[in-house]
Amino acid sequence: MPLKALDYDSINENVKKTQYAVRGELYLRASELQKEGKKIIFTNVGNPHALGQKPLTFPRQVVALCQAPFLLDDPNVGLIFPADAIARAKHYLLLTSGGLGAYSDSRGLPGIRKEVAEFIGRRDGYPSDPELIFLTDGASKGVMQMLNTIIRGEGDGVLVPVPQYPLYSAAITLLGGTLVPYYLEETANWGLDVNDLQRSVSEARRKGITLRAMVIINPGNPTGQCLSQANLREILNFCYHENLVLLGDEVYQQNIYQDERPFISSRKVLLDMGPPISKEVQLISFHTVSKGYWGECGQRGGYFEMTNIPPETVDEIYKVSSISLSPNVPAQIFMGLMVNPPKPGDISYDQYVRESQGILESLRRRARLMTDGFNSCRNVVCNFTEGAMYSFPQIRLPPKAIEAAKRAGKVADVFYCLKLLEATGISTVPGSGFGQKEGVFHLRTTILPAEEDMPAIMESFKKFNVEFMEQYEDHRGYSRM
Amino acid sequence: MPLKALDYDSINENVKKTQYAVRGELYLRASELQKEGKKIIFTNVGNPHALGQKPLTFPRQVVALCQAPFLLDDPNVGLIFPADAIARAKHYLLLTSGGLGAYSDSRGLPGIRKEVAEFIGRRDGYPSDPELIFLTDGASKGVMQMLNTIIRGEGDGVLVPVPQYPLYSAAITLLGGTLVPYYLEETANWGLDVNDLQRSVSEARRKGITLRAMVIINPGNPTGQCLSQANLREILNFCYHENLVLLGDEVYQQNIYQDERPFISSRKVLLDMGPPISKEVQLISFHTVSKGYWGECGQRGGYFEMTNIPPETVDEIYKVSSISLSPNVPAQIFMGLMVNPPKPGDISYDQYVRESQGILESLRRRARLMTDGFNSCRNVVCNFTEGAMYSFPQIRLPPKAIEAAKRAGKVADVFYCLKLLEATGISTVPGSGFGQKEGVFHLRTTILPAEEDMPAIMESFKKFNVEFMEQYEDHRGYSRM
Ligand SMILES: Cc1ncc(COP(=O)(O)O)c(C=O)c1O
Ligand SMILES: Cc1ncc(COP(=O)(O)O)c(C=O)c1O
Repeated sequence: MPLKALDYDSINENVKKTQYAVRGELYLRASELQKEGKKIIFTNVGNPHALGQKPLTFPRQVVALCQAPFLLDDPNVGLIFPADAIARAKHYLLLTSGGLGAYSDSRGLPGIRKEVAEFIGRRDGYPSDPELIFLTDGASKGVMQMLNTIIRGEGDGVLVPVPQYPLYSAAITLLGGTLVPYYLEETANWGLDVNDLQRSVSEARRKGITLRAMVIINPGNPTGQCLSQANLREILNFCYHENLVLLGDEVYQQNIYQDERPFISSRKVLLDMGPPISKEVQLISFHTVSKGYWGECGQRGGYFEMTNIPPETVDEIYKVSSISLSPNVPAQIFMGLMVNPPKPGDISYDQYVRESQGILESLRRRARLMTDGFNSCRNVVCNFTEGAMYSFPQIRLPPKAIEAAKRAGKVADVFYCLKLLEATGISTVPGSGFGQKEGVFHLRTTILPAEEDMPAIMESFKKFNVEFMEQYEDHRGYSRM
Repeated sequence: MPLKALDYDSINENVKKTQYAVRGELYLRASELQKEGKKIIFTNVGNPHALGQKPLTFPRQVVALCQAPFLLDDPNVGLIFPADAIARAKHYLLLTSGGLGAYSDSRGLPGIRKEVAEFIGRRDGYPSDPELIFLTDGASKGVMQMLNTIIRGEGDGVLVPVPQYPLYSAAITLLGGTLVPYYLEETANWGLDVNDLQRSVSEARRKGITLRAMVIINPGNPTGQCLSQANLREILNFCYHENLVLLGDEVYQQNIYQDERPFISSRKVLLDMGPPISKEVQLISFHTVSKGYWGECGQRGGYFEMTNIPPETVDEIYKVSSISLSPNVPAQIFMGLMVNPPKPGDISYDQYVRESQGILESLRRRARLMTDGFNSCRNVVCNFTEGAMYSFPQIRLPPKAIEAAKRAGKVADVFYCLKLLEATGISTVPGSGFGQKEGVFHLRTTILPAEEDMPAIMESFKKFNVEFMEQYEDHRGYSRM
């Protein structure tokens, strides 16, 4: 029998080579256990509402009204919706051409792209052009589209931080390009060392790879660091000299848990640098409604903004966007609301501020709780989560555990995380899914479980960890450093 | 200065080669004219709500409530929402894990995939397995993902009907595969001739192309034909003997405007055929909430169902879906509602039936109005729109018009459609965007303008056409046949 086109041995090899650990072996096992009735704490993916975070009220009111525009004529609508939500729904419906049920322009609704541009202008102090902003079904889709535009084949390389959010490794593999890793330095709070970058570049060039782009994730996933202005300048300088497009993944820009390094956008740093750099470096910045204190992951809303991209290329990107017709319209409205929230004096302002601050402050406390919790565990060290939504502790696995993993046919951190899952129901992602230095092991967990559950979760982790270490440590001399 | 990665001359060639006429030159020009204040009738894309079709009330009520779940506790909610919408919203919220703001499983919510499976089971008379159904952000995304799984490189060919909906040509080009055309026969009401198919296959094989898959669009876009059971059997037989995956684009399955050939799914025909064919032919079927009498294009909801696909391949497809985390959740709920609408006895049933029948019956009348209108025009012949949402008249362009187009540097039908646009504001898509036989010209328009506007639109078209023909016809003998 000849192979059929969708038989495993016959499909696109790049599809098979692609790895995406955030929903990989650990997640699949956790889903199985859940089906069998075990209580699972899903900390594998930054999905706040799945762990009980409540949606912000005002944006949901507005989008609900946009979904049901006939309510706007109902004399009772004012009984359950505040006047500013009603007014805002009318505003957004006017920006659509046929409500939420009509495809929008493939770049997104012009009126909402304008609101995004105004937000960016306020944030950075430099005006932004709505024509260079495309709305997307979440940041993921934007990242994939840009990589597809850049990657021409195996010889094209993209610099990606390691550890990294595996969207990047997955998309690069799927698109048939080459990932060129640069390592973040754990002992320097996951900072980025430009000398090390230079080494990665030289090595890739030696292998005949054409370097095309560099990815930064700021604040970092899974590593949680916030890049300083000085560091961003170095990176942009590097991109200028090495002729690289910078892909700035800034989806966590609202999630900052320290005051020393507030978020600063790559775009602002670039424009602050002045010519020639500010006019030359090509930059794509990504944002989303999935993160921040919104956490509206299920809506699938995002945007990318292009800086220094020539108009003919923008046209090509537009053409490719148009193949899938339009990003979903409800999430475009969430994006509009995120960049243009209620203002002081609006009826819903106080509630909006109360809700968003409540979430952010709790995340800040949880970031601290988790870091401290991990650092109190045997053979575990963990940098503080300066931003984003993750804790990424290093687990110093005893040689016996590494051997046991090998015997079980597992990478050592997968082995550890699977045992953690079976013992406690905590579903994490092994560090190997993000990349890490040889012989060093991590796991990633979100800081998203409800604050009141946090102590019990950390207790349960600690208990598991101590038992694991007891089992595998060589008590005749293995160093616990 | 060396090229930068996003300079036009430097980007992925496949991106540049890709064409997507539905939002191509004509659409861009129409958007410009609209900006300048001209009234444009956008019939370039099947986007019913953009042309005034009202959304169905019940599904919008349910999704609005799901967006604003706090309303479910409001004592006044019953004043503006019917009890069955409230109950259904509660049902769907229970199927999510954290409401609309949480990423779902990357295949979509299990509970909704179950509802889809039940719908397919009722429709076809054969049970369907929810594990083989993946929800997507519109059918487009599903089609692209499946083509990405199938296409390994230039040597891989996909049989695509010509004329075709250009999603297929665009995606195949972007993915670096080869489109192998097979022609639909206009004089046989756009039917498909298996002998002609065989010729296309032999020719492609002679060129060294490995044929992997065949696309059918039923009901057809842009051609509007409905395939008969006999025709579908022939196609499946052909796929069996030629070892091709069948991609069955059935997004217009609700849009049928004649009674001789009701919609019948490829899957039903396949399973009716019995072994070995029913067990061997690999089939992917696509559906959407964008079309039918729903027309919820802006929500971006769809699914694909897999038949005879081995589990290891399904796992690979799942893995790739997981890179973009999850399809948007609100549209998943629209999909649930579409496959499981109100039932007799439900409070909202009568309204639901009234609204959907109203839309369908009007579409049927409009299909007739348009066909008749076109056929009453000089040098225009048009098959009846048996299904889908388009009219695809052939325009017999006089040689002088073809020459004038050449002088203007335009394909002749683009030339005609641009003049139509400038003269009347009617934004159509030239037949060349879908593919057509050499020397034959068409345009595609949707049948979606409001019924009451239809006579004026057809009048305006007729007037333009007659003037165009007057201008370019050689009155000394050009045949009007
Ligand atoms: C660094 C980073 N970028 C992008 C995304 C994608 O987010 P979305 O597609 O939901 O906008 C995520 C999601 O976790 C992320 O962590
Ligand atoms: C034949 C066909 N397939 C697929 C689609 C895509 O629809 P959507 O992505 O909105 O589900 C369309 C849209 O017009 C179509 O005509």
